[in-house]
Amino acid sequence: MSIMKSWDTVAILGVGLIGGSIGLGLRQRGLAERVVGIGRNPQRLETALRLGAVTSTTSHIEEGVSRADLVVICTPVERIVDQVRQVAAACPAGALITDAGSTKVAICRALRSGTGGAGVFVGSHPMAGSEKSGVRHARAGLFENRVAIITPWDDSDGEAVERIADFWASLGCRVMRMRPEEHDATVAWISHVPHVVAAALAAATPAEHVPVAAGGWRDTTRVAGANPELWQQILTQNQHHVLKSLDKFEKVLAAFREALDAGDSSKLEQLLQAGKQNRDALGG
Amino acid sequence: MSIMKSWDTVAILGVGLIGGSIGLGLRQRGLAERVVGIGRNPQRLETALRLGAVTSTTSHIEEGVSRADLVVICTPVERIVDQVRQVAAACPAGALITDAGSTKVAICRALRSGTGGAGVFVGSHPMAGSEKSGVRHARAGLFENRVAIITPWDDSDGEAVERIADFWASLGCRVMRMRPEEHDATVAWISHVPHVVAAALAAATPAEHVPVAAGGWRDTTRVAGANPELWQQILTQNQHHVLKSLDKFEKVLAAFREALDAGDSSKLEQLLQAGKQNRDALGG
Repeated sequence: MSIMKSWDTVAILGVGLIGGSIGLGLRQRGLAERVVGIGRNPQRLETALRLGAVTSTTSHIEEGVSRADLVVICTPVERIVDQVRQVAAACPAGALITDAGSTKVAICRALRSGTGGAGVFVGSHPMAGSEKSGVRHARAGLFENRVAIITPWDDSDGEAVERIADFWASLGCRVMRMRPEEHDATVAWISHVPHVVAAALAAATPAEHVPVAAGGWRDTTRVAGANPELWQQILTQNQHHVLKSLDKFEKVLAAFREALDAGDSSKLEQLLQAGKQNRDALGG
Repeated sequence: MSIMKSWDTVAILGVGLIGGSIGLGLRQRGLAERVVGIGRNPQRLETALRLGAVTSTTSHIEEGVSRADLVVICTPVERIVDQVRQVAAACPAGALITDAGSTKVAICRALRSGTGGAGVFVGSHPMAGSEKSGVRHARAGLFENRVAIITPWDDSDGEAVERIADFWASLGCRVMRMRPEEHDATVAWISHVPHVVAAALAAATPAEHVPVAAGGWRDTTRVAGANPELWQQILTQNQHHVLKSLDKFEKVLAAFREALDAGDSSKLEQLLQAGKQNRDALGG
């Protein structure tokens, strides 16, 4: 009796931290017979191959997806829509296509009426990652116990949606479904505004104080170490929700400032308590 | 041949995370013959004794410091000045007194002209800690490779200053000397403003989004889980520098907002790059 793999061939477009970790997870969990790494940088592909994240590599998208059951696009958000179309035109009929982009409205709206090809697209956003990038930081367990949000439309192909949900679950994710708008509003708060705040704090801090920094500054600014080009794209694609959430953040920050300026210690403590209550709800 | 301990008797006033970790560090490194834990809460003292952070306990400050060579005050910043005076009046002549308070100007200025007693005070701030509090989270290694800032005046007793520096170094700290003003300006940036920003972000985030939160929100808000009463006191004591640094933070944040609002992707990327540069200087 032979054991069926979940997938015969998975193609991963963009083999960095996320793409590489997907490949490692698929391989180590025995979920895919073949994992094709597709990318423009031969050295990075070679590293992915050596680390066991992929079983073959190519720099040609059409060639890489020609036998794929599933294609996962792990490239910067600005490129995803075009690449979905390119993949859809070259993959086998009925192949599934998903992505790992941090924004969903711009991507899913552009593909609302279909991919224009043989592949079926369902948007995804695995809430995992790091300020570190590159396949050398990839690990099979990156997605374990992390949330993966999938963002189908109400009329998306039900079986395709199920299979994409199963895909992320098979890598260890807790899968949530949201409408693209709801996704972008949510991640504005839990990822994009924190990124802006962390980056602004890191940028504002006089460089001579940094060597003294302890836990507070270190944790609060951690994500500011991420790739500026990728994050410029993400923030720009989610401009509306990020600006709206930043507005509210700035109002709450102004309340802290006013309480401190006025020496109103009970108001200041009350504001700190409100922050602690939300933070404690998460734990860890 | 017997080995001399660095200290015969160290008294620790306030046996929580910091005080408890000092006690554990002293005991595990064989640096003190006796460690007296002083506090108001009998249960907490018992826990400290059971964990080996102290060798005896008392709720009476005068009794607790009566034979001490060194007294370390690890209580909320608002209480430190009064307690230094109380300790100084009851400890042996020439005993050293230091603290672990997160602000230094208010404390050191109040004690500028002396402690009014037999003990000699030198201000300290070990840059270690956690959003967790309580002696049950204490650990001997808390201070290893962390910065401890000591803030003597130019005319402070040179030998006392040396011995306090040695004390923190013996627990594993990298010791820095600063004037109290310089300390408060520095920690406004690397600890107090990050705290306000983290708390404001946690408080501003709609509670329904928190369960989805991943690394970004988790790291950026971590310190918001700390004790609001202690932090209200710290921010209030360092009001001047915190407000000044918040001003600059808000200006930089406004620059991010304007770039995003204007769709100026090159300016936005440049700002993100400035944050990354400062963050990368720290590492980890």
